[in-house]
Amino acid sequence: MGDATREIEALIDQVARLPGLGPRSARRVVLHLLRRRGQAMLPLAQALEAVARGARDCTICGNISTAEICPVCADPARATGEICVVADVADLWALERSGVFRGRYHVLGGTLSALDAVGPEDLRIPTLVTRVAEEAVQEVILALDATVDGQTTAHYIAEALAPTGVRVSTLARGVPVGGELDYLDDGTIGTALRARRPF
Amino acid sequence: MGDATREIEALIDQVARLPGLGPRSARRVVLHLLRRRGQAMLPLAQALEAVARGARDCTICGNISTAEICPVCADPARATGEICVVADVADLWALERSGVFRGRYHVLGGTLSALDAVGPEDLRIPTLVTRVAEEAVQEVILALDATVDGQTTAHYIAEALAPTGVRVSTLARGVPVGGELDYLDDGTIGTALRARRPF
Repeated sequence: MGDATREIEALIDQVARLPGLGPRSARRVVLHLLRRRGQAMLPLAQALEAVARGARDCTICGNISTAEICPVCADPARATGEICVVADVADLWALERSGVFRGRYHVLGGTLSALDAVGPEDLRIPTLVTRVAEEAVQEVILALDATVDGQTTAHYIAEALAPTGVRVSTLARGVPVGGELDYLDDGTIGTALRARRPF
Repeated sequence: MGDATREIEALIDQVARLPGLGPRSARRVVLHLLRRRGQAMLPLAQALEAVARGARDCTICGNISTAEICPVCADPARATGEICVVADVADLWALERSGVFRGRYHVLGGTLSALDAVGPEDLRIPTLVTRVAEEAVQEVILALDATVDGQTTAHYIAEALAPTGVRVSTLARGVPVGGELDYLDDGTIGTALRARRPF
């Protein structure tokens, strides 16, 4: 349409670029907001702006929050002796939702990838080595994806940490909770069988 | 997590309330934006705010744009003798994308609905009758959903317009373009057969 809706069209384009959305769903979202300009659209705009301006990477672990030191690192109740290494903030949030881990995190900011030309210097691996040395860490848990890139990264970190003598562990492999054997891939079944435990 | 991420959690909640999104996809969208705070999150916030503050309902037809009179009504090239009546701005946009209609619109703001207690006074029906009388309109095209509520609304409008003597038409019913007979419902096939045309 004309000039006067150019702003709306531009907004739809921006929304359509978000993950999981496309031109059709973006139009739907923007129309929904246009019908609730005061109650939903303006508050959303202001919340986005506040977070965009306030959010920062935690200077210790790389988690994103609206404080210089993230709530996990700032929490005195969290064990300092354990560091859980994750590739991404999304993984950290997933682990926090499980509520099992009570130590602290270290967000790498990705995984090593020959294809995407991501080398060790692009990730927060040097600061991890420094933290392990300085914070009297007893155990580093590698919570990385069970993919080629994830496991390459895990091996690289284990080697980089070897001189510090810290204990390095990784997430258990096996049958997922609720998993039906019939639907599991052969690799997972083989791994679970080899790692079998007394009942 | 703690206080410092409360703003981020609140933002995820707001995004999760958008149509087609849920808690999981909202988290993904917000994380995507958090990683691109300067390049994507702040511009999106500003675009949303500009549209939220600038958008208004066209005083003539009810279309939403960032001008007092929408680009369709303001376009001197659009025929004034034809008004296409739609329930919603989304329908207007859909018709504009087809590029076939060169007249003007009238957005009702919904359809009559006994279930949702939407009566004629909740829709822009009185202003439609006024426009038809004042703008020398020759034809009113009812482009309403082929649902019970849509057709109830169409009948109501046709009756309300009867005293003005204007020609009232409605969208053709039949096989959709690309439609396979095998997959069409019986109602559509019956309607298409009754409305058959010389080949």
